[in-house]
Amino acid sequence: MEIAGIIKGKVIGDENVRITGINSLDKASEGEISFFVDTRYRDFLKETKASALIVSAPVEDYKGAQVVVSDPKLAYARAAGIFAPPVSRYDGISKNAVIEETSAIGVNVSIYPMVYVGREAVIGDNVTLYPGTFIGDKVRIGDRTVIYPNVSIMRDCIVGKDVIIHAGCVIGSDGFGYVRDGSENVKIPQLGIVQIDDNVEIGANTTIDRAANGRTWIKRGVKTDNLVQIAHNVTIGEDSILVSLSGISGSAQIGREVVIGGQAGVKDHIEIGDRAIIGPRAGVHKTIKSGEMVLGDPSMPYRLWMRVSSLIAKLPEINDRLRSLENRLKGSEKEEK
Amino acid sequence: MEIAGIIKGKVIGDENVRITGINSLDKASEGEISFFVDTRYRDFLKETKASALIVSAPVEDYKGAQVVVSDPKLAYARAAGIFAPPVSRYDGISKNAVIEETSAIGVNVSIYPMVYVGREAVIGDNVTLYPGTFIGDKVRIGDRTVIYPNVSIMRDCIVGKDVIIHAGCVIGSDGFGYVRDGSENVKIPQLGIVQIDDNVEIGANTTIDRAANGRTWIKRGVKTDNLVQIAHNVTIGEDSILVSLSGISGSAQIGREVVIGGQAGVKDHIEIGDRAIIGPRAGVHKTIKSGEMVLGDPSMPYRLWMRVSSLIAKLPEINDRLRSLENRLKGSEKEEK
Amino acid sequence: MEIAGIIKGKVIGDENVRITGINSLDKASEGEISFFVDTRYRDFLKETKASALIVSAPVEDYKGAQVVVSDPKLAYARAAGIFAPPVSRYDGISKNAVIEETSAIGVNVSIYPMVYVGREAVIGDNVTLYPGTFIGDKVRIGDRTVIYPNVSIMRDCIVGKDVIIHAGCVIGSDGFGYVRDGSENVKIPQLGIVQIDDNVEIGANTTIDRAANGRTWIKRGVKTDNLVQIAHNVTIGEDSILVSLSGISGSAQIGREVVIGGQAGVKDHIEIGDRAIIGPRAGVHKTIKSGEMVLGDPSMPYRLWMRVSSLIAKLPEINDRLRSLENRLKGSEKEEK
Repeated sequence: MEIAGIIKGKVIGDENVRITGINSLDKASEGEISFFVDTRYRDFLKETKASALIVSAPVEDYKGAQVVVSDPKLAYARAAGIFAPPVSRYDGISKNAVIEETSAIGVNVSIYPMVYVGREAVIGDNVTLYPGTFIGDKVRIGDRTVIYPNVSIMRDCIVGKDVIIHAGCVIGSDGFGYVRDGSENVKIPQLGIVQIDDNVEIGANTTIDRAANGRTWIKRGVKTDNLVQIAHNVTIGEDSILVSLSGISGSAQIGREVVIGGQAGVKDHIEIGDRAIIGPRAGVHKTIKSGEMVLGDPSMPYRLWMRVSSLIAKLPEINDRLRSLENRLKGSEKEEK
Repeated sequence: MEIAGIIKGKVIGDENVRITGINSLDKASEGEISFFVDTRYRDFLKETKASALIVSAPVEDYKGAQVVVSDPKLAYARAAGIFAPPVSRYDGISKNAVIEETSAIGVNVSIYPMVYVGREAVIGDNVTLYPGTFIGDKVRIGDRTVIYPNVSIMRDCIVGKDVIIHAGCVIGSDGFGYVRDGSENVKIPQLGIVQIDDNVEIGANTTIDRAANGRTWIKRGVKTDNLVQIAHNVTIGEDSILVSLSGISGSAQIGREVVIGGQAGVKDHIEIGDRAIIGPRAGVHKTIKSGEMVLGDPSMPYRLWMRVSSLIAKLPEINDRLRSLENRLKGSEKEEK
Repeated sequence: MEIAGIIKGKVIGDENVRITGINSLDKASEGEISFFVDTRYRDFLKETKASALIVSAPVEDYKGAQVVVSDPKLAYARAAGIFAPPVSRYDGISKNAVIEETSAIGVNVSIYPMVYVGREAVIGDNVTLYPGTFIGDKVRIGDRTVIYPNVSIMRDCIVGKDVIIHAGCVIGSDGFGYVRDGSENVKIPQLGIVQIDDNVEIGANTTIDRAANGRTWIKRGVKTDNLVQIAHNVTIGEDSILVSLSGISGSAQIGREVVIGGQAGVKDHIEIGDRAIIGPRAGVHKTIKSGEMVLGDPSMPYRLWMRVSSLIAKLPEINDRLRSLENRLKGSEKEEK
């Protein structure tokens, strides 16, 4: 079982079992490896047809081989990587793609039909561009990056190596900036770019605006979910995570390893410290310190929100208790008179 | 008036009036049929130029023909269907589309220019694919389905019959799953698919992620609005409705005929029972029973929310009343001493 | 310094300095003009390498030329416009675009590869259509309008002059309307259009639905950010601004010069008066008068929300004070007995 080596596990039982796939406990068939991390699924252990199991500690009630690892969820991610089908690639450069002559194209690229690569764009080695991808003038795409269908990367933007951009994303649209002149909104030209560093993954239909000046900067290892909005001049620190439908307003500075929950919003020019956690649907209107965990709108420390959120539904009761006190006090004051 | 038969109505007045279109009371011209459902528009009855009217009960103040039906809104939907222009179709398969040889294409399809159909994809009969549509490898599209421009349907996903997918949607992007290894986020390969059953309609720029394992499943008759996010391994039950900018987190199980309001959010692994109603902007953090109607964040029963929401704006008043009581009690305690 | 004339400023110092670019105080190099509007950046004045400065009043501590204007932010917008690179244009009509014969194309258009223009569509003079743009049958596009990549404009819609539509937008998808027939949702055909007037700018991946009847109407000078949803039959008044991830429900009528904050939501059929301000993340459930500023969900006047929002986090404290009063009153009532 080569896989045990890859996930750095210790095998209990048959070391020679041949593994050909990976699946959940209830769906695995013979020859597949599965994983046991959630004790709620203990009952599946007896019935599973999986030929091997990734576990954090040896389990009873299971007859197959066990691979004991320190972090079964991580081991699962790595094991699944072995069996994941490779990204589909077009063989070479399609004659139905349009590639401007002044661009520079690396070796072993896969360029599907209906791709457009603009003037002086630079495409690295082993890059994959799916149909409908638009690469603007002077855009640079790093090695091994995969860009899925109908993505638009506007002029001058920079995308690093080993980046994945899912379908429908827009990178480098103009930042949203106007000045009023009477009733009219005068556009502030957006002269900067978007820079996306290595190992970033951007979810489907996400939008990232170019800076007014300088750059909107998505640092190494950032992962965004679908339909996320990142405004002009924002910085997102290394390895931070942004969940679906969250929005980061202009010039906000997000630290590293930060988590921003789904539908959360961050005000413009705010700083979020390293490893802070912004809960789902939180509205952040002020600076959040490193390591803080906040929830609610306006956002507040997690423990406080737990109490507050349970009291919101008790407002009618609070109001009734207050009225009752008022009546009792009125009564006792009358008595005193 | 053929139309009366189609909407199963009883005609009062001229049965032979010829109807050539449908419009609202104030905008209808001669030859058009209109409808009267909202009593706020009673004043329009005298002035409308409509030659016939769909009503739930005979009305006075109107001279044209009346078609009495039990459900005028439904009758309007069916009548408007008669006059709606057919979906524009390209005549056959454009030579500017790229269709891989190993795909299987049904009869009477309409494939516009700039469509890409991948390897071993299966396209049913009478399907319409608009420009910029990407159909990934091994994707299956059922009969009569219409896919509007710039939609991306990623490898292996299954789309049923009579489905409508509006422009810019992404079906089958990777689910959002990572495991931390130190500071690094290790991607959990997303090995499953998206399955969309018959008669579903998906709003513009909506995103539906493929499952980690198994399927993300949109069941028969579901309708989503624009910019909706549906995460990996979610199930949406038959005939449910999701309004714009709502987000359903991973592995949530939504029942049948559920309504999810605009900008509402549903936590991961939550169950929502059949026919539940999640109000607009509600934040659902726990299981909702069948038939329940909830609002607010955290979500609560509708009636409770009605009281709570009116008290939120009264918090300053509640605080003042509390302070006043404290002062009065302090006074009376002093007196007692 | 020609620029002083364009921004209507008065020059203090060297009138003949040659300006070749624009940048922020800290990043400007010799030959560039910068601007000083935010007193927090006063320390940069001494160190900046900018050769000239746009200011509202003469400043000390700066050696270069100064251009004094009444509104420096507006002056900056206009000055930046001078140095902004022109929008990239394809030279003429690409042979890789597909343009139906019955369409009418203006003079000096720029039509990139992979554009589709439908039957009887009308494209004005000097229009730019980026790759992946879909122009539906009978759509009309006004002079000088720029449509960025992968935008879909569905049949019959009307787009004015000098409009900018950023990448990935969907204009004219079907409005979201159904009538229940038992458990089934019967589609209400959407027979109207979207009309976008002159000088509008629409942010990336925004969706605007066609009207059920008549038109969804985006009036002159409106600016929307990314990922905004505008439902069927909505009207947005002149020069209004909609920030990212906000959603306007069906038939809402928005006045002129209104600001709608990020992630805010407006209920269907609501009226918002001219120059009203809807704060970020506000939930608007009822009519808002002209000039009103509201925040919160449910939305309330700005000043009230300031007090309410600070009290929400104090709910545990309010609850404790109430309990303490109850105990004290219980005590004093006991004493009395």
